[in-house]
Amino acid sequence: MPVDLNSDMGESYGVYSIGADDEILRWVTSANVACGWHGGDPQVMRRTVQQAKELGVRVGAHPSYPDLLGFGRRAMQITRQEARDYLLYQIGALRAFCEALGVQLQHVKPHGAIYNVAVKDRELSLGIAEGVREAGGDLILVGLSDSELVRAGKEIGVRVAREAFGDRAYNEDGTLVSRRLPGSLIADPDAVAERVLGLVRGTVRAITGASIRLEADTVCLHGDTPGAGIIARRVREQLEAAGIRPTPMGEFVG
Amino acid sequence: MPVDLNSDMGESYGVYSIGADDEILRWVTSANVACGWHGGDPQVMRRTVQQAKELGVRVGAHPSYPDLLGFGRRAMQITRQEARDYLLYQIGALRAFCEALGVQLQHVKPHGAIYNVAVKDRELSLGIAEGVREAGGDLILVGLSDSELVRAGKEIGVRVAREAFGDRAYNEDGTLVSRRLPGSLIADPDAVAERVLGLVRGTVRAITGASIRLEADTVCLHGDTPGAGIIARRVREQLEAAGIRPTPMGEFVG
Amino acid sequence: MPVDLNSDMGESYGVYSIGADDEILRWVTSANVACGWHGGDPQVMRRTVQQAKELGVRVGAHPSYPDLLGFGRRAMQITRQEARDYLLYQIGALRAFCEALGVQLQHVKPHGAIYNVAVKDRELSLGIAEGVREAGGDLILVGLSDSELVRAGKEIGVRVAREAFGDRAYNEDGTLVSRRLPGSLIADPDAVAERVLGLVRGTVRAITGASIRLEADTVCLHGDTPGAGIIARRVREQLEAAGIRPTPMGEFVG
Amino acid sequence: MPVDLNSDMGESYGVYSIGADDEILRWVTSANVACGWHGGDPQVMRRTVQQAKELGVRVGAHPSYPDLLGFGRRAMQITRQEARDYLLYQIGALRAFCEALGVQLQHVKPHGAIYNVAVKDRELSLGIAEGVREAGGDLILVGLSDSELVRAGKEIGVRVAREAFGDRAYNEDGTLVSRRLPGSLIADPDAVAERVLGLVRGTVRAITGASIRLEADTVCLHGDTPGAGIIARRVREQLEAAGIRPTPMGEFVG
Repeated sequence: MPVDLNSDMGESYGVYSIGADDEILRWVTSANVACGWHGGDPQVMRRTVQQAKELGVRVGAHPSYPDLLGFGRRAMQITRQEARDYLLYQIGALRAFCEALGVQLQHVKPHGAIYNVAVKDRELSLGIAEGVREAGGDLILVGLSDSELVRAGKEIGVRVAREAFGDRAYNEDGTLVSRRLPGSLIADPDAVAERVLGLVRGTVRAITGASIRLEADTVCLHGDTPGAGIIARRVREQLEAAGIRPTPMGEFVG
Repeated sequence: MPVDLNSDMGESYGVYSIGADDEILRWVTSANVACGWHGGDPQVMRRTVQQAKELGVRVGAHPSYPDLLGFGRRAMQITRQEARDYLLYQIGALRAFCEALGVQLQHVKPHGAIYNVAVKDRELSLGIAEGVREAGGDLILVGLSDSELVRAGKEIGVRVAREAFGDRAYNEDGTLVSRRLPGSLIADPDAVAERVLGLVRGTVRAITGASIRLEADTVCLHGDTPGAGIIARRVREQLEAAGIRPTPMGEFVG
Repeated sequence: MPVDLNSDMGESYGVYSIGADDEILRWVTSANVACGWHGGDPQVMRRTVQQAKELGVRVGAHPSYPDLLGFGRRAMQITRQEARDYLLYQIGALRAFCEALGVQLQHVKPHGAIYNVAVKDRELSLGIAEGVREAGGDLILVGLSDSELVRAGKEIGVRVAREAFGDRAYNEDGTLVSRRLPGSLIADPDAVAERVLGLVRGTVRAITGASIRLEADTVCLHGDTPGAGIIARRVREQLEAAGIRPTPMGEFVG
Repeated sequence: MPVDLNSDMGESYGVYSIGADDEILRWVTSANVACGWHGGDPQVMRRTVQQAKELGVRVGAHPSYPDLLGFGRRAMQITRQEARDYLLYQIGALRAFCEALGVQLQHVKPHGAIYNVAVKDRELSLGIAEGVREAGGDLILVGLSDSELVRAGKEIGVRVAREAFGDRAYNEDGTLVSRRLPGSLIADPDAVAERVLGLVRGTVRAITGASIRLEADTVCLHGDTPGAGIIARRVREQLEAAGIRPTPMGEFVG
């Protein structure tokens, strides 16, 4: 029952610093590196790929809508073709740093609003998946478990990793509870670690209390929550204590 | 005595159209494709690479300072490391489109002000050349003949193409006459064609009337001058009439 | 029965030219001047305000979502407070040019997608109207006739002008026929002029053939359609032939 | 012998936070508020103007080159006319927030590289001063004491405030010691406070040890140095202990 641990990285921009990359990176197996459209810039990209390399963490692209002002968190109406081209551009930009540093690009995880909109938007998802396929290199597309994005990836013919969240509450239908609702975020390290252990086995407790099935290849650990480093460490330690060694998705996703 | 003909392409952006790509592309052997920082966007990049492919024209990256508002034509004080990272980002982004469309990226020609500043700025030139080397793929760096950029390319160890301009007046020292001075631009198709013929043989008449030596592997044809298409055609025809078949730089630059 | 004729202006950006400002400006009474977020830049803004002043055309702000790449034509999910602040920023920037050139800012017409989304989105419309009110100066908010934007403007307490389109087909419920449907755009100058005459009297023929009621204070003439200048002239001449002198909205909107 | 204390404020952008606004704002008399081109965004601008208002601190515009990626710290070659238009745009945008919140805009202090280049560049300085004059409202232009910018302001006919730095070392000729040289930054609160006291009286010790004359109407306190809040407080307290009450520049600059 392998599982990957991923986190968003390299979202600083120019003089602006954000995230807790240094604290998180050592506990995860895959880093989603921003590509300059919602955060990240060429210098941050180089530095982040270099850091991941040094810690043996796999690197993925973390492309976004073109919205630096909104940090890529606002839905935007783009066409399937735009999605495809925007993905290809950002993947290519990041891959140049990977190749220069001798790192193989492993995956692509859309960021923020484009990820969320793709959960239910088939056209957008197809555009994203086409961009990933066109980029070549047998890249893995990461999408929310049971989403249109995962289905589009399979349909288009790219490798797909199903993602779950250890620090977010779920509805009974497997969707995430909106961040605006109380109880949507889980901040207690032990609670998160326990949920991740459940996710590895394919179950998680919904906000209603019911136990639901949820298939996940990779679990996201957020870097922008308070105590993110502590949570990441606890999750890693609890997994290993349970005999589960987090494994980069590239080693087991079909 | 082979010579390449190059032109800047794909500088449209969003709803904005610029240049005479359709008229020029068929007469040149190498297209310098904008990468989104002074012009060009992911959709324009795809379209331009596709067009070049269909006409058998080789593709290069045309990276710029980050200055869409100024179309990359304003000098900016960036560090050697910034130059390196900015080049790598833009080359990578364009290369993703090339690879998706089955086109091999041939060269890198800096755009506008970064090209002009690099003529005399050794540090900037070294950063540019390092970015090109890091991008791999045996890319050719295009710089003004006898410039710091050409010297930096050789020092860093990348292939280099020396560029000359058929439609620009030269000073006796081989530098270009400033665009702001009278006589700096040559608009007559026959005059341009004759100068290109001279350049192929290593000589051009300076604005003073003196004949000067100038080594050039590739001659630039501007797409933003009036009658650009007519000039490009005349140059091509005159070269062929003289028994010189324009050849992509990738085929002869060492 | 006064009517204003408005057109979008000053949407060029840097080296990029767009629109037919010179051909249209002389026939309209109000110019909507882009503020740099979807098009326009500080130099274009100055030039456009100056041109309008010389022709005695009133000036309004034409603010947009922050989306230069998409020319402000893509819906974006922004909050009411963001709308308010984005409006205020852009209005202020344009007004500085107006004041420097001795021109009084007359109105605010949102551009593209933010205008279209506001037709049905009450929260967005309230944010827009609040931005206009905060800007002071008794500015007129221009919105589609019978839209949420017009209602929000009245509720917030700003002057409001109801807009109609002479070159766009209407559904029977007074909404515009989608640009993607056949027959949505009317390109014949006489047909447009006739429709504008109808609009002045409060009626227009819907795409179904039915005659519908439509109150309009201002009619938009697009500058980006082929023959835009000819259409604008015909509309103006037909109105004057019918004894209707187009009047800037500021002179009659309550 | 009145003196103003100013600091740069509101340079956060979107999700990115920077500076120590809350710690500094209460100790200064004038706040230079970023206008979105190097930092700041419409929401940050509103918040910063509101904070300044609540603390009775005067507000100025802090316009920049268009360079968010470089935080406005990189010299860019722009024309006099561009400088004028860029200033006018940014001043207007900020002033809209000031007017909406009932605050009168007091001054304009160029940010970062445009400020530094203007120290010696007469053409750029004239463009900046023209932008300030055109903005109207009797705005004060802030420039380095004894700089081209101060001279240009006088020549163009705007009010001018001469600025000095309490935490930067000076050369004997009154120019600032480059940040790259050792000893250029003074971090000890008492040393800064003592230097500011000297500046009020028109003298400061140069890095060579010599005492030099330096006329200053306003002293800048940086918000991005470690311990910025402590330094600001110490300066304020030492001034008041010496019987000097910091006064907004608008109350005494002629």
